[in-house]
Amino acid sequence: MNFGTVLRILGNLLIIEAVLMLPSYFIALYDGGPDKLAFLMTIIITAAIGSFLAYRFRREKAISAKDGLAIVSIGWLAASALGALPLYVSGVAGYVDALFEIVSGFTTTGATIFSDVESLPMGILFWRSFTHWIGGMGILVFTLALLPALGIGGFQIYKAESPGPVAGKIAPRLKDTAKILYTTYFTITIAEIVLLLFGGMPLFDSMVNTFGSVGTGGFAIKNTSIGAYNSTYIHLVIGFFMLASGVNFSLYYSFFKGRATDLFKDEELRLYLKIVGIASIAIAIDLWLVDYHNLFYSLRDAFFQVSSIITTTGYSTSNFDLWPTFSKGILMILMFIGASAGSTGGGMKVIRILVMLKLIKREVGKLYHPRAIIPVKINNKVMSNETIARINSFLALYLVLFLFSTLIVSLEQVDLVTAASSVAATLGNIGPGLEMVGPTQNFGFYSIPTKLWFSALMLMGRLELFTIIALIAPKNWRVDA
Amino acid sequence: MNFGTVLRILGNLLIIEAVLMLPSYFIALYDGGPDKLAFLMTIIITAAIGSFLAYRFRREKAISAKDGLAIVSIGWLAASALGALPLYVSGVAGYVDALFEIVSGFTTTGATIFSDVESLPMGILFWRSFTHWIGGMGILVFTLALLPALGIGGFQIYKAESPGPVAGKIAPRLKDTAKILYTTYFTITIAEIVLLLFGGMPLFDSMVNTFGSVGTGGFAIKNTSIGAYNSTYIHLVIGFFMLASGVNFSLYYSFFKGRATDLFKDEELRLYLKIVGIASIAIAIDLWLVDYHNLFYSLRDAFFQVSSIITTTGYSTSNFDLWPTFSKGILMILMFIGASAGSTGGGMKVIRILVMLKLIKREVGKLYHPRAIIPVKINNKVMSNETIARINSFLALYLVLFLFSTLIVSLEQVDLVTAASSVAATLGNIGPGLEMVGPTQNFGFYSIPTKLWFSALMLMGRLELFTIIALIAPKNWRVDA
Repeated sequence: MNFGTVLRILGNLLIIEAVLMLPSYFIALYDGGPDKLAFLMTIIITAAIGSFLAYRFRREKAISAKDGLAIVSIGWLAASALGALPLYVSGVAGYVDALFEIVSGFTTTGATIFSDVESLPMGILFWRSFTHWIGGMGILVFTLALLPALGIGGFQIYKAESPGPVAGKIAPRLKDTAKILYTTYFTITIAEIVLLLFGGMPLFDSMVNTFGSVGTGGFAIKNTSIGAYNSTYIHLVIGFFMLASGVNFSLYYSFFKGRATDLFKDEELRLYLKIVGIASIAIAIDLWLVDYHNLFYSLRDAFFQVSSIITTTGYSTSNFDLWPTFSKGILMILMFIGASAGSTGGGMKVIRILVMLKLIKREVGKLYHPRAIIPVKINNKVMSNETIARINSFLALYLVLFLFSTLIVSLEQVDLVTAASSVAATLGNIGPGLEMVGPTQNFGFYSIPTKLWFSALMLMGRLELFTIIALIAPKNWRVDA
Repeated sequence: MNFGTVLRILGNLLIIEAVLMLPSYFIALYDGGPDKLAFLMTIIITAAIGSFLAYRFRREKAISAKDGLAIVSIGWLAASALGALPLYVSGVAGYVDALFEIVSGFTTTGATIFSDVESLPMGILFWRSFTHWIGGMGILVFTLALLPALGIGGFQIYKAESPGPVAGKIAPRLKDTAKILYTTYFTITIAEIVLLLFGGMPLFDSMVNTFGSVGTGGFAIKNTSIGAYNSTYIHLVIGFFMLASGVNFSLYYSFFKGRATDLFKDEELRLYLKIVGIASIAIAIDLWLVDYHNLFYSLRDAFFQVSSIITTTGYSTSNFDLWPTFSKGILMILMFIGASAGSTGGGMKVIRILVMLKLIKREVGKLYHPRAIIPVKINNKVMSNETIARINSFLALYLVLFLFSTLIVSLEQVDLVTAASSVAATLGNIGPGLEMVGPTQNFGFYSIPTKLWFSALMLMGRLELFTIIALIAPKNWRVDA
């Protein structure tokens, strides 16, 4: 690894993080809470470390794919480690809890350790939700736009950090790509804020809830999450924007370029919408018959929760942990499926599920035509054996990590559903799980080692597993000549 | 499909089933229970249907691969449908319950609908355990020996019914293979009966418990399963024989041919033993620290339960549903892994897990050598892309079926762990699950449609999924010219 380059870019990232903390500082000043000094200190520390690194290693230029992997992983870690300081310094959480919370923010997970978020100062509330917004774009634009702007061709990083197997170039030049993604992201953000304001939500709430939904994060500023806003209009707006943020952003590019037909021909999008539709209707019927006895509310809550879970946001409008087992089972499956590749969402990604389903179909077909060579096609393009193997390995590793972590977590003497859903919710960057980590509960009761393991899982899930594993591999830590 | 041939062979199978019911009839006669008439009637009906089919279609000879698939699937179904009659006619169970029980027997699952097995007549007890013994060999020898003996070359059937991806010819001629497998199976069976008698177990109990362990079935004749025999010796003997029955039987052939080194070079066997070792020790430590506070008993019970679950037998010596979550989590994972290919056990099979682990390892390696072509080798033989794709599809289909069925079962308003473990236990041919289907519980409370679905899952699991799915495909039901 070329440590100098890695540290130089890291330095620049930290300077940017310091700048991005300013709005939270101003809000803390306006609010007059105990967090204003904490933000000021953190900004100074972060800017200082960043400037030192950027200046000390300013002559380092060369960058390799290995460095790319390292920058992405270490960058998220360092940004979280420093981003946790305001929570720690202001005294609202111990350091490991603060780290868990901010890793959960930057990875757009939304799992919290706070039992009473409403008691938190405004600056902190703004900052943790803002990390969702930063992290959500981070996965694509942070590296597609910022790193190239810092003077490095970032395509190898993009490859490492892209949330799915079909990243692809969406515009010939990186800066153009980044601009398009930025514009799309800003447009969606502003549209949601305006629509929420229109529904009577206060400006501060509109902003933080938009950060949480556009970034598919899910940190709430009310103890009952979005359920605190007793308005069908608001539930529908947020439900829609979560769903939109779980779509591959390159499809929006096609859409704005006038290739609208691309959008609805895309096989991943079609499967994604099909899953949302079927899951919403199935849960709605279950709720209607077993619990609610009101079809409209059943449909509304089912749609919101399906949209929230499949996009790995994690907002809730009702305590779904009390829903019938069938509905909970569907939500649990959605936790694994996750959103589309190239979106801000997490999970396994719909495209990978699509490929696996096509492989199963092919194998059944082969039973009667054993010598037939049937290629697997997505959007009329044949997938190479190599891509298929990569997808299979990813899914297998995801499951191995899920099972292994569930065992680790079960040492805390929690029940199996709590252990399994805690892991699914962090590895998939969702947020809440079931039982003891249900939507009205939190992760605060876990021990420190387990919280650190969850933080690692959130990062691994966000960076598509292999990025982190490669970083851990000892051969990556040799100094390049 | 060539219906005539299928029906002719089916007829012969039913005649054999009638013969195989004779011992149970004699025991019922000796016992004087209410089941003696039921057995007599069933034997007459089964023999009559069998003879009619065998005679009516005696001129049908041609057999295709499609017919092979059909014979295997329909054979298991018909044998179960008629094998359930003694339970139904003698009045100990309704017909669907009886069918569930005997499908559970023939598929070597061991899931029961009886809450008090000790009250059942001896003939019935013998018959349900004997179906394990028949079914255990069935998966290999039933088709490798009997069908060829009936005058058809059965290799395409072997391919359809083999429990794993590495079936391979273990002897050049089928009859020889069958003889070797028969001999091994009989030897192991007699060895276990003798060793259990030696430990003071009554002859009847020694026989039925041997059927259950050698066939990796797990039907108990005591309400507390093997726990009823308060003898460490007996626990160890049964634990060992379950483990031995979960090994690929072709390795025993190598062993007896003097190629003992093959045995311990076999990668699947090594991983199988490693998993058993690690799981036993991990559970033992957990039990020791949390529950038992006695290392010896912890080790003994942990080994027995690990051996029972990984081989998909399902016997228990203690109520593992009350064990700490970590131990239960390990058992739940073992339910999916299952035994070795070419054994009497079920589950996904260790060889498939091995291939997946190698695929993950290869993918991590590729991160730094993106252009390297690294073949996946098992026992020094390169696996073809086709075999790998088949394994991937199998595992994916297994999970899809598991998740889908869990949702179906959760409509019964049971908790998630009950629903998921019920499905894992039937699809994997294990028997007991957790919570409401734990080792001291039974499947009796489920509704009739759910019991039928479980019966289908047991058959699908036993016949490696694709066999049954192919049978269901409508194009298989065309009459061949």
